[in-house]
Amino acid sequence: MVIKEGDWVLLYIDAKRNYLARVRRGHELHTDEGVIALDELIGSEYGSTLRTHLGVKVIVTRPTLVDIILRGFKRSTQIIYPKDAAFIVLNAGVGPGSVVVEAGTGTGALTAILAYLVRPSGKVYTYEIRKEILEVAKRNLRRVGLDKYVEFKHRDVRKGIDERNVDAVVLDLPDPWTVLGNAYAALRSGGVVVCFVPTVNQLERTVCAMREHGFIKVEGLELLERRYKVLPGETRPVNVMVGHTGFIAFARRP
Amino acid sequence: MVIKEGDWVLLYIDAKRNYLARVRRGHELHTDEGVIALDELIGSEYGSTLRTHLGVKVIVTRPTLVDIILRGFKRSTQIIYPKDAAFIVLNAGVGPGSVVVEAGTGTGALTAILAYLVRPSGKVYTYEIRKEILEVAKRNLRRVGLDKYVEFKHRDVRKGIDERNVDAVVLDLPDPWTVLGNAYAALRSGGVVVCFVPTVNQLERTVCAMREHGFIKVEGLELLERRYKVLPGETRPVNVMVGHTGFIAFARRP
Amino acid sequence: MVIKEGDWVLLYIDAKRNYLARVRRGHELHTDEGVIALDELIGSEYGSTLRTHLGVKVIVTRPTLVDIILRGFKRSTQIIYPKDAAFIVLNAGVGPGSVVVEAGTGTGALTAILAYLVRPSGKVYTYEIRKEILEVAKRNLRRVGLDKYVEFKHRDVRKGIDERNVDAVVLDLPDPWTVLGNAYAALRSGGVVVCFVPTVNQLERTVCAMREHGFIKVEGLELLERRYKVLPGETRPVNVMVGHTGFIAFARRP
Amino acid sequence: MVIKEGDWVLLYIDAKRNYLARVRRGHELHTDEGVIALDELIGSEYGSTLRTHLGVKVIVTRPTLVDIILRGFKRSTQIIYPKDAAFIVLNAGVGPGSVVVEAGTGTGALTAILAYLVRPSGKVYTYEIRKEILEVAKRNLRRVGLDKYVEFKHRDVRKGIDERNVDAVVLDLPDPWTVLGNAYAALRSGGVVVCFVPTVNQLERTVCAMREHGFIKVEGLELLERRYKVLPGETRPVNVMVGHTGFIAFARRP
Repeated sequence: MVIKEGDWVLLYIDAKRNYLARVRRGHELHTDEGVIALDELIGSEYGSTLRTHLGVKVIVTRPTLVDIILRGFKRSTQIIYPKDAAFIVLNAGVGPGSVVVEAGTGTGALTAILAYLVRPSGKVYTYEIRKEILEVAKRNLRRVGLDKYVEFKHRDVRKGIDERNVDAVVLDLPDPWTVLGNAYAALRSGGVVVCFVPTVNQLERTVCAMREHGFIKVEGLELLERRYKVLPGETRPVNVMVGHTGFIAFARRP
Repeated sequence: MVIKEGDWVLLYIDAKRNYLARVRRGHELHTDEGVIALDELIGSEYGSTLRTHLGVKVIVTRPTLVDIILRGFKRSTQIIYPKDAAFIVLNAGVGPGSVVVEAGTGTGALTAILAYLVRPSGKVYTYEIRKEILEVAKRNLRRVGLDKYVEFKHRDVRKGIDERNVDAVVLDLPDPWTVLGNAYAALRSGGVVVCFVPTVNQLERTVCAMREHGFIKVEGLELLERRYKVLPGETRPVNVMVGHTGFIAFARRP
Repeated sequence: MVIKEGDWVLLYIDAKRNYLARVRRGHELHTDEGVIALDELIGSEYGSTLRTHLGVKVIVTRPTLVDIILRGFKRSTQIIYPKDAAFIVLNAGVGPGSVVVEAGTGTGALTAILAYLVRPSGKVYTYEIRKEILEVAKRNLRRVGLDKYVEFKHRDVRKGIDERNVDAVVLDLPDPWTVLGNAYAALRSGGVVVCFVPTVNQLERTVCAMREHGFIKVEGLELLERRYKVLPGETRPVNVMVGHTGFIAFARRP
Repeated sequence: MVIKEGDWVLLYIDAKRNYLARVRRGHELHTDEGVIALDELIGSEYGSTLRTHLGVKVIVTRPTLVDIILRGFKRSTQIIYPKDAAFIVLNAGVGPGSVVVEAGTGTGALTAILAYLVRPSGKVYTYEIRKEILEVAKRNLRRVGLDKYVEFKHRDVRKGIDERNVDAVVLDLPDPWTVLGNAYAALRSGGVVVCFVPTVNQLERTVCAMREHGFIKVEGLELLERRYKVLPGETRPVNVMVGHTGFIAFARRP
C-alpha cells in the first residue's frame, strides 16, 4: 500500500522509540536518533525502511486505529482505555450496520471506535453539551476519515434522545442515571445500554436506576489489565500497573 | 421486529431464570415456572410478553451475539471469554472489511465474533486440524447466519497459511510459536498477530518467539474481570470470581 | 516432640487427603483410605508415620495455628481470611506484649491470632454482644490453649471501651463508625485502629468517620490472594479465585 | 510515654507532610513548613504537639515498626512489602518463642519483623553472604533495638544451615531451590519453609523442587494490594497501583 499525503504512519526505531505522525509535505519529525523527513515517505510503501539524518534505520508501518486514538487524537478530556472500549462495544453487540447513540462525545475516542465498527451502513449519534469539546472530537474523527458515519449533536442528552429503535446507547457521563429514561425510550427491544463511570458510588446509583427503569440483565463490573515483562526465564507481571480506570454497567431493554 | 421460525429468542422471567431458545414449530421449553410454547412466538414482536402454562409472565427479547455464543453454541472445546475476545479484536484492528486468518477454529466462538465484525466485505479464514470439531463450528456459525463470511479450512496451520496481505492473524493454539513464521508471511505490513494461551510458560515462549521472528511492538498481558454485587448501600465485588482465563500476546509485522 | 492426649495433629495422606484431628483416647478418624486409630498416636512423635486399617501410609505432623483456626474452630460466624488477618496484625504493630481491644469476637479466629502474638505478657480484650457466640469463641480459644491471654467481655463495644492506653483496636463489625469515638479514647498516642468491613459503602463511611474523629494516616484498601497451579512448563493462576473478602481501613490516634 | 534521646518519632503535619526522625540532641529537621528542633522533643510525651519555626503545628506520635522499616532503615537491597511480610510470618506460624532461620538478610526488613514477633524467648538466625549488606542490616536492627533477638551469620546458606529443629525457614533469595535440602534438615516436623521470589519461573522451579524434596502442603501464590481513594460519594480504587512485588511459595516438612 502506497503512502500519500495526509496518511498516518507509525515510525518505528525500537520498542521505546516509535512515533506516530501524519505525512505532510515540508514537515519533519525530530527524534533523539535524528530527523526524519516526512516528505520522503510520500510514494513509498508501508513496510519500507528509511534513515534519519544521523543514519539510524526507521521502519515505516501503518498504525492501528487504537494507535491513532491513543497518540494522535487531540485530547480535550480523559480518553477511555482500549480494554474498556473493547468490552463495551462487543457486549453492546456493536458491529457493521449498528445504530448507536453515544453521550458525551468527549475527545471522540469511543466515537471513533463505534464509527469504525458500524461502517458502512450503520450510524453513530453522539451528544455533547460542551461546544468546544465537540469541535475537537469532530476534527479528531475527520483526521481518521470516520466523521461521515457520525452525526455530531450539540445537545443535552438529559433533555431527550431524538433517535428511536437504536441498537445501543453508550453513556460516558458523570450522571448516567439522569439519561436512563431517555435511553430506554430510544432503544429497541433487546437493545443494550452501557454506562462507564469512575467511582463505586456512581456504579451503585447507575445499576440501581437501571433496575428501577425496568431494564433487565443488569450487570456491574470492572476490567483490570495486567501487563507482563517477558524475558526468557525471568517473566513476571510489571511492577506498576493501572489499577483502576472505571466501572462498566450494562443492561437491556426488555 | 417480527419473530419467525429459526430465530433466536431470549426468554426472560427474572435475573436467575432467563433462557436462550431457537423458535421452532412444535417445540416447547420446560422451565421451573412452567412450559413455554415456542410456537406461539412466531409472528409476535421482540419485546412482547407471553405466559407459561402456569401463568408466569415471560418477556421475549432478542439475544445478543454474545448470548448465543455463550449459551447457544454446541461446545467442542473451551470457549474464549468475551473480555478476551473483545480485547483481541479491537487491538487487532478488526472491523468491517478486515481480512483475518484464525487458527484453531475450536467451537467457533471467536470465529463468529470475527465474522460478525468483518461483514459484509471482509473475510475470515479459519484453520482447524480436527475434522469433527470443524464441523461443529460450521454448524454453530450457520445457526447465527455468519458462515458466509467464513472459509473453513481443514488444514494444519503449522504447514502454511495460503492467504497473503491479511490484516490480522489470531492464534488460539497450544503452540503458537510454531505458526509465527507463517503468520509473518501472511500479514501485511502493520498487520497484527495475536496469540491466546493458558499458561505463563506459553506466554513467555510466544513473546520471545515473536521478537525472534522480527515482529515489533510485542506485548504480553492478561485481563481480569471483576463483577460487583450491587445493592443500595451494600455494594461489593462478588466473592467468587474467574481468576484466570488466559494470556494474550500481541505483535505487528513491520 | 511427643504427642499427648488433647494435642492437635495434621494427618497427611496426600495433598487432597489431609485431616486435622485432636488426639483422644478411644476415638478414631474415618477417611476414604481407611480408619485411623487416634489412640495410637499418643506417645509417638510428630513426624512419625502410621497406617490406616487398610494399610495406607499417614504422616503425622503438627498443624499450624492457621490450620486449627481454619479447620478446627467451631464456626458461629464468617471467619477472617489469613491474608487479611496477617495484614491487620502487622500493620497494627501487634506483637509480644501488645495490649489489644477487639470487637466483635465472632468465631474467635482473629482473637486467637492476636492472643498468639501478644503472648506471654500482652493481653487481648474482646467484646461481643451475642452471648452464645462469645461462648463458642471461648471454647475455640481454650482448645488451642490461648484463652489465658484473652479477656472475654459480653458487652456492647458501642457503649464504651473500659481499657485505656491500648496499642491497637481491631473492629470486625458492620458499623465500626459507631465505635470510633470509644476507640480513640482507648488508644495510646500512635495507637492503631483497624476496621474490617465487607462493602465499599462501609469502607467509605468508616474512612470518612476516621477523618472526622481526628485520626491521622487514614487508609483504605483490600488484598487479593491469587493462587497458582504450578506444574513444570504449565504454570498459571488458578481458574477460580476468591475475588473479595473485605476492605480494611487503618488509622492512628495522633 | 516520655520521649528520650535516640527514640523514633513520627512528626505529623498533614497526610502529605509527615516525617520519621530519630531524636538527637543538637539535630533539627527541615520541612517545607519550617524547621523542627528535635532537641525540644526530649522529655515531652508522644501525642503532644509543637510548632515549626514558622509556627506550623506538628503532632508528635510514636511510629510503628513498619514505619521505621519502610522509612528509617538504610537500604542496601529491595525491601519486602508489608503485605508479603505479614502473610509470610503468619502462615509460617511465627510468634513469641519461635526459632526462625532466614536467608538472605538483605536490608533486614523481614529480619526486624521476625525478631519483633519472636521476642523475648525466640531467636532469628539470619544468613547473608555479602558482608557489607549484613553490616547495614545489623545497624538497622540495632536502631530499633531488635538486634539482641538475632544472630547474624556471614555465611552461605547454600553450604549448610547449622540450626536444627527450627519452626520456620524463610528464604528471600534468587535461587531458593538450592537451599531446600538444608531447609528440610533444619526444620522440625510440621515446620514451614517459605520462599519469596520475583518471577514466575522462580516460583515454578521453587514449587517443583519443594515437591521433589518431599515437602508437603506445597502452595504458590501472590498477593495484590489495592488501595482506595475514599471521598464521600466519590470512592474508587486508586489509578496507579503496585501491580507486582513477588510470589510466595510455602511448604512443610512432614
